[in-house]
Amino acid sequence: MKIGVLGTGVVGQAIGGKLVSLGHDVMMGARSADNEKVLAFATRTGGKAGSFGDAIRHGELLFNCTRGDGAIPALGQGRGHLAGKTVMDTSNPLDFSAGFPPSLSVSNTDSLAEMIQREFPAAHIVKTLNTVTAAIMVDPSKIPGAHSVFVSGNDAGAKGQAMDLLRSFGWQSIIDLGDITSARGPEQFLPLWVRLLTTLGTAEFNIAVVK
Amino acid sequence: MKIGVLGTGVVGQAIGGKLVSLGHDVMMGARSADNEKVLAFATRTGGKAGSFGDAIRHGELLFNCTRGDGAIPALGQGRGHLAGKTVMDTSNPLDFSAGFPPSLSVSNTDSLAEMIQREFPAAHIVKTLNTVTAAIMVDPSKIPGAHSVFVSGNDAGAKGQAMDLLRSFGWQSIIDLGDITSARGPEQFLPLWVRLLTTLGTAEFNIAVVK
Repeated sequence: MKIGVLGTGVVGQAIGGKLVSLGHDVMMGARSADNEKVLAFATRTGGKAGSFGDAIRHGELLFNCTRGDGAIPALGQGRGHLAGKTVMDTSNPLDFSAGFPPSLSVSNTDSLAEMIQREFPAAHIVKTLNTVTAAIMVDPSKIPGAHSVFVSGNDAGAKGQAMDLLRSFGWQSIIDLGDITSARGPEQFLPLWVRLLTTLGTAEFNIAVVK
Repeated sequence: MKIGVLGTGVVGQAIGGKLVSLGHDVMMGARSADNEKVLAFATRTGGKAGSFGDAIRHGELLFNCTRGDGAIPALGQGRGHLAGKTVMDTSNPLDFSAGFPPSLSVSNTDSLAEMIQREFPAAHIVKTLNTVTAAIMVDPSKIPGAHSVFVSGNDAGAKGQAMDLLRSFGWQSIIDLGDITSARGPEQFLPLWVRLLTTLGTAEFNIAVVK
């Protein structure tokens, strides 16, 4: 499948590399097509490099792997090419302006996923994977046993497509939380995640929902 | 141990009953000492009934099991009798004013636990158990396997006392998140908890932190 990955950081590199290894036709997008990190991705993986707009035009499906405040500007670079496309949003609205631990720049009665969905109503935003670190996103088997990942979104078909991709990454416990407003749940999980990071001394952990 | 339990709802009844069954000298406190629910507790369990002030005076250790907005008024009824006492705070700042799902009345850069600690600086607030439903709080073995509960608080001795009580309830995976500001984590977990409640169709679930 033709997939566009927006963002050149740790998450974008992990997701992009995994998608290439699974045989997808991947273009990573950056602020500019000659960005060092996007060129390094192409060299390292055999994937393609482009601008945000290039990657959005390339992808039948998109991954948003930007930092929280970068999501809307990045997707805006391909505004006319989002209609009907699934956008898997892995970003978190973390605000480090007052240091560590971060607060959230949007929370409680709204979420970053909802902001993105409102800004690009023709796209199908699916919030997912934001509750685990990059290495676990693309290789959940690094943690033994079944543990959980969530999907939130308004379009059932887009969520099904997202869940298929998650299964191809190795995810077994995928919980559909509901429409895009349910993304408030996993986004507001981040303050607990950040405290667990400090307590456990590793980012390679997750939660298993058990009953 | 002499323990005061503030609140006569499902959580107070579950915690109070469990503590009596473990041999503690328990007084449940209500707005008034002749409140129907607090009298029913005494009849049902053999524990004692009183006002909020009575229960605070009675307890060497206290459980706050009020609704979120009831915590400070209830504890205020025994303001002069809180010094040095551990207060295990199980409450959540849920705001149902706009219907279901609820939002949080305090979040992000503050928490209910911190508000209580600021209001009663001589008490040792320990946030705990707010991430599970009442039946699981007092009987974690209802869910198979190890699953997690959190403690947050400024006083190491108070957290140790709380952890001992949690172990006596059957908790095996007790995670110390840090000082009272870390209560922002488990309090902001509630929006995810509420969505999981809807998705799973039961309140008797929990999360296991796994690595």
